[in-house]
Formats: sequence, structure tokens, C-alpha cells
Amino acid sequence: MTRGGTPANSVTPGRLRARRALIDTYQQAVVYMRSDCAVCRAEGFEAQAQVEVVANGRHVPAIVHRVDAAWLEHDEAALSEAAWDLLGLKGGEEVSVRHATQLESLSFLRAKVYGRKLDYPSMRALIDDVSHGRMSDLHLAAFVTACAGGRLDQQEIVALTRAMVDAGDRIRWPMSPVMDKHCVGGLPGNRTSLIIVPIVAACGVVMPKTSSRAITSPAGTADTMETLAPVTLDVATMRRTVEREGGCIAWGGTAQLSPADDVLIRVERPLELDSEAQLVASVLSKKAAVGSQRVLIDLPVGLTAKVRSSAAAQSLAASLTAVGAAIGLQVQVMETDGRQPVGRGIGPALEAMDVLAVLERRADAPQDLRERALMLAGAVLEMAGRSAPGSGLALAARTLDSGQALKKFIAICEAQGGMREPPHASHCEVVPATSAGHVGAIDNRRLARAAKLAGAPQDAAAGAVIHVRLGDTVATGQPLYTLHAQSPGELAYALAYVHAQTPIVTIDPR
Amino acid sequence: MTRGGTPANSVTPGRLRARRALIDTYQQAVVYMRSDCAVCRAEGFEAQAQVEVVANGRHVPAIVHRVDAAWLEHDEAALSEAAWDLLGLKGGEEVSVRHATQLESLSFLRAKVYGRKLDYPSMRALIDDVSHGRMSDLHLAAFVTACAGGRLDQQEIVALTRAMVDAGDRIRWPMSPVMDKHCVGGLPGNRTSLIIVPIVAACGVVMPKTSSRAITSPAGTADTMETLAPVTLDVATMRRTVEREGGCIAWGGTAQLSPADDVLIRVERPLELDSEAQLVASVLSKKAAVGSQRVLIDLPVGLTAKVRSSAAAQSLAASLTAVGAAIGLQVQVMETDGRQPVGRGIGPALEAMDVLAVLERRADAPQDLRERALMLAGAVLEMAGRSAPGSGLALAARTLDSGQALKKFIAICEAQGGMREPPHASHCEVVPATSAGHVGAIDNRRLARAAKLAGAPQDAAAGAVIHVRLGDTVATGQPLYTLHAQSPGELAYALAYVHAQTPIVTIDPR
Repeated sequence: MTRGGTPANSVTPGRLRARRALIDTYQQAVVYMRSDCAVCRAEGFEAQAQVEVVANGRHVPAIVHRVDAAWLEHDEAALSEAAWDLLGLKGGEEVSVRHATQLESLSFLRAKVYGRKLDYPSMRALIDDVSHGRMSDLHLAAFVTACAGGRLDQQEIVALTRAMVDAGDRIRWPMSPVMDKHCVGGLPGNRTSLIIVPIVAACGVVMPKTSSRAITSPAGTADTMETLAPVTLDVATMRRTVEREGGCIAWGGTAQLSPADDVLIRVERPLELDSEAQLVASVLSKKAAVGSQRVLIDLPVGLTAKVRSSAAAQSLAASLTAVGAAIGLQVQVMETDGRQPVGRGIGPALEAMDVLAVLERRADAPQDLRERALMLAGAVLEMAGRSAPGSGLALAARTLDSGQALKKFIAICEAQGGMREPPHASHCEVVPATSAGHVGAIDNRRLARAAKLAGAPQDAAAGAVIHVRLGDTVATGQPLYTLHAQSPGELAYALAYVHAQTPIVTIDPR
Repeated sequence: MTRGGTPANSVTPGRLRARRALIDTYQQAVVYMRSDCAVCRAEGFEAQAQVEVVANGRHVPAIVHRVDAAWLEHDEAALSEAAWDLLGLKGGEEVSVRHATQLESLSFLRAKVYGRKLDYPSMRALIDDVSHGRMSDLHLAAFVTACAGGRLDQQEIVALTRAMVDAGDRIRWPMSPVMDKHCVGGLPGNRTSLIIVPIVAACGVVMPKTSSRAITSPAGTADTMETLAPVTLDVATMRRTVEREGGCIAWGGTAQLSPADDVLIRVERPLELDSEAQLVASVLSKKAAVGSQRVLIDLPVGLTAKVRSSAAAQSLAASLTAVGAAIGLQVQVMETDGRQPVGRGIGPALEAMDVLAVLERRADAPQDLRERALMLAGAVLEMAGRSAPGSGLALAARTLDSGQALKKFIAICEAQGGMREPPHASHCEVVPATSAGHVGAIDNRRLARAAKLAGAPQDAAAGAVIHVRLGDTVATGQPLYTLHAQSPGELAYALAYVHAQTPIVTIDPR
């Protein structure tokens, strides 16, 4: 059998022929070899052995999975998707697989585990290895754990943040001040950025907003914006958009901005270790890398949000402000209400429709989304020096109500590549109240989960629309929320989930 | 296509047909599904998603790997070896795959990460989940890290140890005192147990020794013994052997003794986090589970052994003794020399030959192995009350030199199922000195690595034989050590390794 690269009968002894396994193992690079192949036997590779795969002029750390099934030949090494991408292979290249050399940074990891303080060079070595995919999942989990629970002091958080910035690219803008905004998360539907950016840009304030896609939520700002305009802009397009319109709302993934951040987040999430140190380093490293100078941070506080109490919020705010100052960022934190979703839509297109309703000043636009966006936009205008303290909110409201913000939003969409209509889902079903009373509580997390089961964010049109707010009076049979999906199967799964658990919307009797 | 279990066209919607993937992913259970199969889409399973696989009346935690290759059908779920074994499948059974329910014990894990003290019920819940394979590799890594670096106080170590004992079976012996011995490790060739057990048993002291197979070393006690007699004894055979002969040397894996231990060790090793707390819990939980009452611990100290300094040894000894007392074990620790291998052979059969040479009192027997074994056996005899303090060594020497120990060893082998000859390797090569002088240092770890590359312990006959000791005078060309292997390829790999690095045996000029 011949493949591109090397004739079938001339694989160098000790080498294997590369093949794409077409197995997605997420960010862990895996190399599949037959347990009875010559290399496995000679090197003594056991399953999960840490190795280095060398091919195509690159070398990539990976773990070994041993195969005894018929689909893999004795002279082949199959690579998981992560490994395949990292090596840049086409198929048929010769690869060699060898025991991994010990990462130097692992001695720093152990030092941290044993309670020693890490300086910038140590953090830099660790973060470089993290961002280059050289650390196994086990080591990443150990690193994240060793940094949690208050084990990093402020100097170490500053060192970690700087190391995360320095591990990637950095964008610098010719204008000043460069504004930014971030929401710590955990609040479905909180897509205020799509309203804030056009408001402040229309007032002449520069806000080159980059945002993430959803990692565990039903929609990220980038997903929602993408239903209205292209977001995967390269840095040149971002610059042109900002030069022309004063703002953009783009996906931050085209440049290598704080590349270790995503790697760490994907390990922190399954561990549910939301350590303050890592949140600060994650947020601020991304802001510094994208060239922001003054950052407004929206911190929703609520029992089912990410930050559960005002005390926790104040601790986090103090850290964000102090670490920000240490790396040259002016940071202001606003505690906001995190007890219920913002707006009505949850899911990319459904949230985009709420945003358009606010920008278009429609009578049925969700007032809570409008008011949050205005409050935050006002704060940005004041931080930028465009408004006197106390006058920002009024300027923001005038800019929105006059239609200038809508006009600017359309212009930004056009500059990013063209505005489009968000899609509509083909299937939906209402979930009604089963008793009468007042809405006593709304579980953000479970509502978000239902929206995900319905297909968000992969199906941009899928998700949920909530029809009630805390305190509303409801009658039996009154619609509480509606699930939207692109297929009956997904709709059924989401409905099965909401009915199998305690109610997402708690109704207290009169 | 029809398989045993369910006709091809009648898989229940939402279910998949079980198939053995024949992929060894070590202890992490993996379920392979097509990314475009109905269940994956409906549940929104991403790669590495934590799920529960339900089949055959069992449920097993696993992670998802998504497949786009042709070998997996849309209605199939393929299981990695670990998952296949845990579920006890034959092939064709219907499986359902659902999002994992949150483990309750994870809240205890987080509590520990955040610095809180864990009590016995929390440790018990965590260890139960560990031993039942319910914790993902990420969570195991987080647990191991959270317990390292002195973060467990003595009460917590006691709780952890008790939880590890209680998670599995416990053997109780009618005799008393039941003696045991353990070597903390890191010293190749240190197979003193095979000499100590027959000496003390011949003196009427009961020593039902269970040992491990090698995890990262070229031979474990069980591997070495297995070249001479069967070791995979069930508990009934162990009891018969001990009742008849007063001792046994068996593999401890047939009973479920401290089942979480192996799971944790396999995560600790790649992390190289040898935390004192976990070592204490690991050793003592195994001893308590196997019914031992008085335990002698051999603690080799040396720069390339596991314990590097006398201070570290004393700290460990104090912990072993105190925790032992808290769980009803009498523990005595002896610091021994860890600067060079013991005996000459490294690898199961090669070490067995050293043991036989000592038992047979051959003139060319390695004297260091003989002397260590006698010293430790003497200490066991005194701990058992069989010898007055200070007289144990002399009794041990008499028992060995009279041939009683050899006779008892043969009887033990017969009782375990029959004595046999250790195998001999077919290929070997000498590594000579390249200069003249004195042997200044011997690198235990690299010599062990060379023995492993040569094939130990999978090939029982493979390994290394060292011909010199620290301080010996050597001439250029004099044999330093010989590598043994079953195939020319493995011999070549081991030789390539030793020649590519700094010398394993350091020769200082005269």
C-alpha cells in the first residue's frame, strides 16, 4: 500500500508512517500505535506513556494509546485531531516517537505544589510549556490545583498574568484611551457589549472589543455577534474597522492572544476550580494582550451566578484592580445583579434579537438589557473622560435613543464584512407554569443547560426565551419559557431534562 | 449486520451497541462514539466530556472520544480496555451514555483544594470514588496535588489511611504476631524479602508477605518471586501456605486490598509528586489490609534513591510510626544505605539468581544482599519477640548458614504451587570501563532504566547485572555491567540508551 510521502516498503526502522486517526480527544494529543509494533516494544511504551512525536520538522508532546484492532497497521502511527493539527501533517510522513524529555518547568510546578513562591521566570517557563501544548492533562490539572485556594499571592498573580501576556502576541493601538469591558460571566443573555460598543464609538470613544466564543455557556459574545456579522477578523481587518468606526466586536482567536488561557480554562472547567487568581490572570492577560488601557468589569453577583456574594465580589474586585495597576491597566469593577438572566433570549440568535430590539428602540425590547447596557456604557464614557462623572448614563441614553448607536452598529457590521439576519429555529415548545403564584427564583445554570441541550451554541438559532422575571405574578398554564431547537430530537432532549428535575422557575404560592 | 445480543435493526433509540475498541488507554475508561451519531448530537457530548456508560446492569464513568473514521458505525459505542473490563461486556449489548452525575465527593476535593481539613467521612467518600474508577484523571491529579506539599496534617493522613483500608477487603490471621516488612523503594535489586521470609518462618515467626509487581522499576518482589514459584495466589491458598509453612511470598493483587492505592500511584508517578502523606497512607493501608500487626520498614537513603537525605528519612519515619500506631500497627523504620544497587542482578530472573545464591550460601553470592537480608531479618525476629534485643542478627545468620532458610524457601515455593528455574536471557552484552580509576558513583535510576529498555520486567529474563561496587578499582576495558535481553532489538535499544548519556558508572581517576 502506497501513501504520499514514503513508499510502503521503505519506512526507516524505528519510524512509523503518519496517519490521521480521525479521533477527537480534545486538547490532549494522542498517538495510536499497535501494542505489538516494533517501536512500542522496543521503547517499552505503555498506554498513557508520555512521549514526543517528531514529524514534519516539529515535535509535539503526546500520550500513547495502544491499539490491537485491525484498522491500524504495524508500521503506522495514527494521530488524534489535536496531534494532527499541531504537527501540520498531511499523511504518510515518517514520524518518530520517543520517550518525552522531562520538561524543565515541571520542577517549578513541583516547587509550587510544595508551597514555594514562583517568580516571573518560573511562571514564564510554565506558561510557555502550557501554551505550546507540552503539558499533559495531568500536569495541567496539578498546576491549576497548585495555584488555587489562595496559594498565589499578589506578586505571583502579577507574574502569572505577565507570563500569560508575554507568551503570545500583543496588539498596540495608536489611539488613546483604548477602552474595554468584560463580564465575569455566569449570567445567561448578558450581551451588553453589542450595545455598549456602538454607543461609545458613536461618542468618539475607541473600543476594539474582542470576545470569546462560549466554552460552557449557551452563547458567547462572539457567537451572538456572529449571527449579525463576521467575527473571525484577522488583526488587519480589526484595525481597519476600528480606524473607520472607532470600535469592533470580533472573535479574539485569530491572533495568539494569551494562548495559555484557553488551555488552562479547558482544564479548570471540569475541575470546577474557579480560583480567584486564575480568573484575574485570565481576564487581565487577555485585555493587556489586545492592547486595552482602561477596562470596565461587570461583576454579576447572585446565588446561581459565578460570584455568589458581595464579599466575594469585593475580594475579586480588589485583586482585579491591584493586579491591573501592576501591569499598566486601569480597572474599574461594577457589581451588578446576578439573580436572573438578562434579556429574554438565551442562545446566539435569540440574544442577537434582543440586542437589535434595544438598538432599534422597539417597545417590546427587554428593558433590563437596555438599562444594564446604558449603565455600563455610561461608566465607560466616564472612564474614557468623554463624560464628566455622573453624566455618562445620560449621554449613553441620548446616543441610543437618537438612533446614533443603531447607525454605528450597522456601520461596524458592514466594516466587519456585512450585516446579516439572525436565523430562526424550526422547532419550539413552551414550558408553562404548573401552579399559580409569584416567580420566586430562576435557576440560571439549569436554564443555560436546557438551552445547550436544545442545541446552543452550535446551532446558532437554538436556545431558550424566558418570558417572566423575578416577582412576576403567574397563572397556571402561563408560559414561563420557550425552548427553540433545529430538530425534534434536540427539542425532546431539552424538554426531558427540564421535566426530570426540580423546576427551573420556582413559583411561590400567593 | 447482526451481533450477539440485539438484532441489527432494533437498537432502542438513544442507545448504542457495545463493541470492544481494542484500544488500551490505561486506567482511564473511554467510550468512542461517532461525532455525528444521534446520541452525541442530542446530548451535546464534546470530546473529553465526562459521562456515565450504563450496560450489563453496571454503570461506569468514562470520557468521550469522538470518532470520524470508518471503523465505527453510527449505532455503535466502542469501549477502551479499561471500560470494557469494568462493564464486563461480551459485545452487542445495548449501552446508554449519559452526562455524568456530579460526584458528591468532588465537593470534598474542592474543600481540600481551598485549604479545609478533611475528616474520615469525606476521605472515605473520595477514596470510594477513586477505587471504583469514578474519578477522571483530571480529578485524580487535582486530589493528589491537593494532598501533597504537607497539606494533610497527621489526623488527615490517618483518616486517608483508614479510608483506603476500609475501601477494600481485609485479611485477618488467627496467629500472632503477624510480621511484615516493606522497602520504600528506589533501590534496584533490593529483593531481601525472599530471604527474610524463609529465615523468620524457619524460626517459627509468621510472615505472610504480599508484594507488588513493578510499577516503574525493572522488577517488583512479586515479579522476582514469580520466576521461582507461582505468586497469584487466592486468599485461600495464601492461608494454606502460611498455615503449613509460616510464611508466603505472594502477589497482593488477587484480593481487593486498598484498591485505591494502585489508582493513585498511577497518577502520582507521571506527576512525580512523592508526597510523604500519600506514601505513608499507601504503605500502611496495604499492610493493615493484609492483616499485618508489626511492620519493619527498610528506608534506603541516597542521592539517587527515593529518599535523598537523613532528615527526609527521619521525617518520613516519624510519620510512618505515628500513623501506624493510630491504626493499630507497630512500625519500626530502619535507615539503610541507598547509594548503589543491592546485589548484582536487576530484573526478575537475575535478581532471583542472586537470592538463590545467598540461600544456597554459594561463595560467589552477593555479600551485600546477604548482609542486608540478615540485618533486616534479625530486626524482624526481635520485633516478633523471637530474639532478645541485639540477638536477632546472630539467629538469622545461623538459620541461613545451617541451610534451614533454604529448606523453608523450597517448602514455601512448593506450597505456593511448585518451584521452578528462573529463565536465562538469550542475548547479552558487556559494557566496559572506558578509563581506569575508582568507581565514584553509580546512578540507580539510569541503570534501572537501561534494564527496562532491555525488557525487564515483562521479559522475566531481561535486565542488567552489575559487576562493580562503589570504591572498586577498575582498569580500562574491565566489565562494569552486562545487559541481558530476549531479542537483539531490545538489547540494541538499551545499549543505545546507555551510550547516549553520561555514564551510569562514574569512574574517578586515580
